[in-house]
Order: sequence, then C-alpha cells, then structure tokens
Amino acid sequence: MKTVIQNINKAFENRVRLGVMSVLMVNDKLDFNALKELLEVTDGNLASHLRALEKAGYVEVQKQFIGRKPNTQYKATPEGKKAFHSHLEALENLLKSSKKS
Amino acid sequence: MKTVIQNINKAFENRVRLGVMSVLMVNDKLDFNALKELLEVTDGNLASHLRALEKAGYVEVQKQFIGRKPNTQYKATPEGKKAFHSHLEALENLLKSSKKS
Repeated sequence: MKTVIQNINKAFENRVRLGVMSVLMVNDKLDFNALKELLEVTDGNLASHLRALEKAGYVEVQKQFIGRKPNTQYKATPEGKKAFHSHLEALENLLKSSKKS
Repeated sequence: MKTVIQNINKAFENRVRLGVMSVLMVNDKLDFNALKELLEVTDGNLASHLRALEKAGYVEVQKQFIGRKPNTQYKATPEGKKAFHSHLEALENLLKSSKKS
C-alpha cells in the first residue's frame, strides 16, 4: 500500500490536470480553446492548471502565428509523459488493490 | 473525454483520501494508527482528510473501548463505497483513453 500512495504524483492529483495530461498523451499539440472544449472547464481554471504543469516542466508552451493571429499550443514534454506514465501506473496499482474486496 | 473528467470525484482527488478509501474497501474497519501505518502519513494530514471524508458521508467513525482504552475505528459507508466505485471507474476510463497513444 505504502508505495502505491507514494507513487501518486501530487502534480497530477487535480482532475483538470489529469485531463490535460491525458489528452496531451493522445494529441501531439493542442491549443487553449481545444483543451477548454475537450475538458469543459473555465478559462481561469484551465489557465491556472496549465501554468502549474508548465512550471513543473510537464507541459511546454509553443507560441506561433496562424496567419496574423497569435496561437498558443500546449504539448506534453518527454519528462511530463514519463511522469504521467508513472502516475497512471500508481493509479492502476491502487485500482487493483481496491478490487481485492 | 468530457464525462471522464466530470465523473472524477473531487472528494477523492487527494492521494491520502484515495489511500484511505482504498484500504477501507478491503478492510471492514481500521483504527487511526493502522491507517497511519498503512498509508505512511502524518497524524495531522491523516486526521484532516478523514474529517473531510466523514463530512462528505463517505467514512464513518465508531468509538469503542478496548479494555479501558478508547479506540476509534473508521469504516467506509455504503454511500462512500458506491461513490468510490464510480470514482475508480472514472479513473479507469481515463487510463484507457490515455493509452490510445
């Protein structure tokens, strides 16, 4: 049990962060509006969790122009993908241990 | 994706709460010290999360005496078990959707 909990990454506890990482594992890059629509969250909520993930080095921001419009894309870093994999493993172990009941 | 995130229960986001519910699914009742040892958390941390789970109606407290010593046992309520099951299902769906990569 010990290890199960210790391996759960606090940076991913929040469900918005779980969602962001989850969609960035499947999609190479997504812009803010795509993330917002996929996750059905408010601007402020999404922005604050993206900042936290960026600060942790798990998500990187790529600014570009589409025509003359600035567009910000979000991408999981290799470190973020690795950390999220470990987190998912920890969750899986927890699921397994809860099902012994 | 939407539903995946919406079904994640905020009451269980924290890893200490995940751990408490997880061990209370497998063990009928546990006292404070047993929980503390299983989860390797501090008194204050555990106490505050147990209070939150109790307040949500997911955990119930049973006070008893072992000889002359007071002993407090914690038990998942039927509502808590049901809510935790739904939470685990939501996590499982998230795991599945993250693995399509």
